[in-house]
Amino acid sequence: MAVYTDVSADELAGFLAAYDIGDLLSYKGIAEGVENSNFLLHTTKGSFFLTLYEKRVAVDDLPFFLGLMGHLAARGITCPQPVKNRQGEALGRLAGRPAAIIDFLEGVWPRRPNATHCAALGDVLARMHVAGRDFPMTRANALSVAGWRPLFEQAAARADEIQAGLCHLLASELDHLERHWPRDLPRGVIHADAFPDNVLFLGDRLSGIIDFYFACNDILAYDVAICVNAWCFEADHSFNVTKARALLNAYSRQRPLSDAEQDALPFLARGASMRFLLTRLVDWLNVPPGALVKPKDPLEYARKLRFHQSVGSVRDYGLAQSGLVS
Amino acid sequence: MAVYTDVSADELAGFLAAYDIGDLLSYKGIAEGVENSNFLLHTTKGSFFLTLYEKRVAVDDLPFFLGLMGHLAARGITCPQPVKNRQGEALGRLAGRPAAIIDFLEGVWPRRPNATHCAALGDVLARMHVAGRDFPMTRANALSVAGWRPLFEQAAARADEIQAGLCHLLASELDHLERHWPRDLPRGVIHADAFPDNVLFLGDRLSGIIDFYFACNDILAYDVAICVNAWCFEADHSFNVTKARALLNAYSRQRPLSDAEQDALPFLARGASMRFLLTRLVDWLNVPPGALVKPKDPLEYARKLRFHQSVGSVRDYGLAQSGLVS
Repeated sequence: MAVYTDVSADELAGFLAAYDIGDLLSYKGIAEGVENSNFLLHTTKGSFFLTLYEKRVAVDDLPFFLGLMGHLAARGITCPQPVKNRQGEALGRLAGRPAAIIDFLEGVWPRRPNATHCAALGDVLARMHVAGRDFPMTRANALSVAGWRPLFEQAAARADEIQAGLCHLLASELDHLERHWPRDLPRGVIHADAFPDNVLFLGDRLSGIIDFYFACNDILAYDVAICVNAWCFEADHSFNVTKARALLNAYSRQRPLSDAEQDALPFLARGASMRFLLTRLVDWLNVPPGALVKPKDPLEYARKLRFHQSVGSVRDYGLAQSGLVS
Repeated sequence: MAVYTDVSADELAGFLAAYDIGDLLSYKGIAEGVENSNFLLHTTKGSFFLTLYEKRVAVDDLPFFLGLMGHLAARGITCPQPVKNRQGEALGRLAGRPAAIIDFLEGVWPRRPNATHCAALGDVLARMHVAGRDFPMTRANALSVAGWRPLFEQAAARADEIQAGLCHLLASELDHLERHWPRDLPRGVIHADAFPDNVLFLGDRLSGIIDFYFACNDILAYDVAICVNAWCFEADHSFNVTKARALLNAYSRQRPLSDAEQDALPFLARGASMRFLLTRLVDWLNVPPGALVKPKDPLEYARKLRFHQSVGSVRDYGLAQSGLVS
């Protein structure tokens, strides 16, 4: 949660004068999003999101993120669409920062996702992967396998402070992942961060997938693995195969997973565990004393990693190989 | 800024079922308010505020605050009105905390208040003082003169770390204020925290006065003094007599200040400076290292205190004694 930058009403009115979104009625800083400053605007024409991009977001990546949202929205994916100003530009500047106005999507994110939510996520994820095929821009995934060793090296010396044996687990797993990371699986645009707090629902109906600021080109099934991790474990760390089956079956109905993708899924889920384990570990070890924002628990992902190490095949996730489970 | 408590969609839907405010479309934690957790709700019937009262607010005071807002709103003061549930109650419980739904007022607070804003504030403050006359509940002001010495004692030993001589300034001023604090001035319900971020405007029109969680019974002119301090100094610490004149004249048109109140104003402004100087000083000295929320600068109010010590009479604020300046 964060609003790093405040904006005066005069500055904001000046910025909005370039848009055709009505007159400003109110704006409130939103306590979510750790990378950017977000405001909810009410205008005489409706509700909008205003995002100011702070230092941690590379300005050069913004055209990819904003372009992707527009591309997907035009293809029927329920995601926020950047609003262009009268010059046709989606990206402007406000309070010394890159800034964009984005459609506000109604909906609430599921604090306790059920199998219906998981199915809706699987469906939209697959449709997003299909809709992204003709998106012309590309962005490398800085947090895929090649990015993990530098993170490991930042955290290795102190990993055992968090849990005895963690450094060894990370080192041996990283060797294994680097040696066997698949090269021939279908690739495309992935969301890479489709956690429950980035997926909005009205009742059981998915009303929006948001926050594309980790989107990139990578293995499509790796995106599925990230979602299995984020949606299918219970608070007590148990794996809920009903939720996983719902997610994978719904995905497969829109974009069938090939045999090679299915075979790779347990391995990709280990990789997805490693990615969030490492970034959370680095955040955990670098939190300033007394900070109000509590970092997320890295050990949640150490448990998930160990679970996937024990998985024999995609059947253990509820998906029958080469077919759908009814 | 803070959202201390998160609320699940299920919990919130259960809470809202007792109200007649439509179906929930979205809710966002708001990055403002340091005492409570605030959410902006969109429902099929409009926008509302949801406040969860955290530990620092005394539960016993909530009926006073909510009752006052309803009382003032019913008398034409543009302030948020608590929404009662179907049982006629304004105060409920959510996520283990006292909680209330309050009208959402459109408007933006002036980051750089001008004389027009100051006049609008003076007008609404006086009308609020008049409208509060028949409010039947009372609440003592814990942060009036009797509350200052305990704060001073918390901060005294380390005050000179902030500025050499600050401890002596505080000690001698506190003696003076305690000895001469007026006893016979008109009293009533005061807002006690009508800073610019608690007053909303649409253009030059005041659209709402909010955040009544310091409201209490005290000297009415002391509320005016708090506002002179909060609205009439420039960022470079100079006193803007045009703004003060606008505020005081607009106030006087709705509720004329008696001779005794006018005479007391410089003294009350010293007291108002002392109150915010002391609370800011205690906050400043107690901020945890690395905290993301930067406390407000106590020395801003040391400067204001010294300014008011140099003031001879209310004329120095732009108000001619016993009359209005045109």
